[in-house]
Amino acid sequence: MSTDVDAKKLKVVPSQPEERVNWRKRKAELKEAKKLRKETKLIKQLEKQKEEEAAERENSEQQQNEKGRAYTVSVALPGSVLDNAQSAELRTYLAGQIARACVVFCVDEIVVFDEQGEDVKSVEGDFKGVGKKGHACIQLARILQYLECPQYLRKCFFPMHQDLQYAGLLNPLDSPHHMRIDEESEYREGIVLDRPSKEKKGSLVNCGMRKEVRIDKQLQAGLRVTVKLNKTQNQTENKVCKGVVVAPHVPRSEGGLYWGYTVRLASCLSSVFTESPYKEGYDLTIGTSERGSNMDQATLSPFKHLLIVFGGLQGLEASVDADQNLDVADPSVLFDLYLNTCPAQGSRTIRTEEAILISMAGLRPKITATFPDVSSGSLKN
Amino acid sequence: MSTDVDAKKLKVVPSQPEERVNWRKRKAELKEAKKLRKETKLIKQLEKQKEEEAAERENSEQQQNEKGRAYTVSVALPGSVLDNAQSAELRTYLAGQIARACVVFCVDEIVVFDEQGEDVKSVEGDFKGVGKKGHACIQLARILQYLECPQYLRKCFFPMHQDLQYAGLLNPLDSPHHMRIDEESEYREGIVLDRPSKEKKGSLVNCGMRKEVRIDKQLQAGLRVTVKLNKTQNQTENKVCKGVVVAPHVPRSEGGLYWGYTVRLASCLSSVFTESPYKEGYDLTIGTSERGSNMDQATLSPFKHLLIVFGGLQGLEASVDADQNLDVADPSVLFDLYLNTCPAQGSRTIRTEEAILISMAGLRPKITATFPDVSSGSLKN
Ligand SMILES: C[S@@+](CC[C@H](N)C(=O)[O-])C[C@H]1O[C@@H](n2cnc3c(N)ncnc32)[C@H](O)[C@@H]1O
Ligand SMILES: C[S@@+](CC[C@H](N)C(=O)[O-])C[C@H]1O[C@@H](n2cnc3c(N)ncnc32)[C@H](O)[C@@H]1O
Repeated sequence: MSTDVDAKKLKVVPSQPEERVNWRKRKAELKEAKKLRKETKLIKQLEKQKEEEAAERENSEQQQNEKGRAYTVSVALPGSVLDNAQSAELRTYLAGQIARACVVFCVDEIVVFDEQGEDVKSVEGDFKGVGKKGHACIQLARILQYLECPQYLRKCFFPMHQDLQYAGLLNPLDSPHHMRIDEESEYREGIVLDRPSKEKKGSLVNCGMRKEVRIDKQLQAGLRVTVKLNKTQNQTENKVCKGVVVAPHVPRSEGGLYWGYTVRLASCLSSVFTESPYKEGYDLTIGTSERGSNMDQATLSPFKHLLIVFGGLQGLEASVDADQNLDVADPSVLFDLYLNTCPAQGSRTIRTEEAILISMAGLRPKITATFPDVSSGSLKN
Repeated sequence: MSTDVDAKKLKVVPSQPEERVNWRKRKAELKEAKKLRKETKLIKQLEKQKEEEAAERENSEQQQNEKGRAYTVSVALPGSVLDNAQSAELRTYLAGQIARACVVFCVDEIVVFDEQGEDVKSVEGDFKGVGKKGHACIQLARILQYLECPQYLRKCFFPMHQDLQYAGLLNPLDSPHHMRIDEESEYREGIVLDRPSKEKKGSLVNCGMRKEVRIDKQLQAGLRVTVKLNKTQNQTENKVCKGVVVAPHVPRSEGGLYWGYTVRLASCLSSVFTESPYKEGYDLTIGTSERGSNMDQATLSPFKHLLIVFGGLQGLEASVDADQNLDVADPSVLFDLYLNTCPAQGSRTIRTEEAILISMAGLRPKITATFPDVSSGSLKN
């Protein structure tokens, strides 16, 4: 019997008069139990403290890398915003506006959540996270992924699909990881080629350059990889370039470059929070609403993973209502900050795609002020 | 011969040796001339000072009206941005995006300038300002005017026109002067009706209410007017409401309400500045460019009439190049401030319609900080 269990048991001991209680003994037992509980608590606190210290060390190590950006920014919105468009073309265009708004402000993750409460399991599409949502969510996520993918990789990763029928109308993202063929860069996105390669020589990767890149590892054909190219390439002699595969966050965390966004589907608003891809979750969350408090008076505390959440046609109230896991009526209690990012607005309603640009433009200097030392340079201008 | 002319003459006297110079006399003359010039200068300074004081008085009188907003904000952009759209529908949609961006930030005037340098005189359309521009300018201006007009007046002011073919796709502006039929308001936009009315009784106006409004003046039928409704209306007894015609700026300058924008066409970039509808012109001008200085470090000096200018696909450089009146190559010299409103942007280019939302969102708190006492409330939230 472990002391931990003992302590728990004592806590719920029924106060029924069994035989005659030996009060002195009982008191001693209770005291012992209390001591145990206290010790257990202390040990837990200590462990937590150690963990935090380790995280902090890791964090400051990352920050010491001058060029890198240690923090991430995520944006979440309901897929239902697409249903607000008046034609199939405009539906596509709207998805493109959202992608561009996020790219302009260097957003690292876009979360598309279902606010229709349709608990329909669906595996259509190839998305991270659970696949249960109405079609608007899937289509928005698909267009976001399509736009994020460098043009030279699209034909490999995006076969013809009805959701992409009007993709020709989309404005390009023109982000730094969408490299032109002759552009020089430390990093490149690529696809592992299905090409027989001599043992121990590593796979060949198409990185959208004139030459293929031989990487250090033997990987499965068809994988999308982030490649760090070797600084000195024997351009004229070698038939291939050389590079190593790195984690997708490395261009940001070490190079300080903006490297596009990942897309995640969430089956309801609460899953946006609980299914964070970051081990520690989001440590600063902002809800947006015309009923929020004036953003001009707000300051941001330092964070590692910022999440900014937008509502759809009916605001975040509707998203909260549709979520069976949430018992609250007022969305503001879900967030660290609940902000009106456009005080004195001249229109009765601001559309979600406009609100993203407006809110991110308002938050940008506040984020910059929170990280005065981090190079925020995503493009070399 | 006026003393002023004398002074001028003396200034340019040639130093040719005529007869023999009477130096003593000459010295006295020069001294006298200097005195005159000084006096003239002083008089001019005094006049200027008086003017400024008067303007200041007027200004502070306006400002004392707590509710009112004394300043105006104008936005200028080239009509050519429409040519950047990929279909007729998206061309219309883009114009709507621009209208909404300006309304959200309570812009009072939108100036559409021609950067194609087509010096084509054209009187097509019914616009303030000279009508010489390519069709993109006309179409943009027409859609902007159409959207600004309250729905209940559109059929009177906007007959069917090809430029408005896809107007059904436009998102409404939902600004405060777009009143619903039963909404109560101090002011309303209306059209003077062609209805025989007894002498001295004043014209009847359709203000989009259930009843018509009898105004204080007899005006020409078909005119668009801003009406201030009498506070106490004998609702049940009278068949009409009563009101007085006011200048269109009154809802803003006295009521502190956002009351839509006017649209002006300019035949080139320099006309944006020189043909200002404000007697004193614009007293604070901001150019926008990714090559501008970081807006985070900028503060705005107090102004009466702010002008913010955006470029098209090729930036303001192209607009300057196309303008035969401008001899400069660098657009920055034309403005009081030349600002990068989105430092560290994650996309190589920001589109003009995005730049308007981003820049206005960034400037909004700076404008608010410049006028801490002015109620900026445009809507009652
Ligand atoms: C069409 S609006 C929602 C309007 C809805 N009627 C309401 O009252 O919330 C869509 C989203 O845009 C964002 N939004 C609109 N106006 C905003 C403001 N002034 N400040 C912050 N976010 C805003 C919010 O995320 C909102 O959920
Ligand atoms: C497509 S951009 C022009 C790009 C053009 N290649 C250039 O270099 O200027 C259109 C307009 O958006 C505005 N704009 C774009 N990025 C901006 C930024 N970072 N800061 C301020 N304005 C910007 C400017 O008014 C610009 O003229």
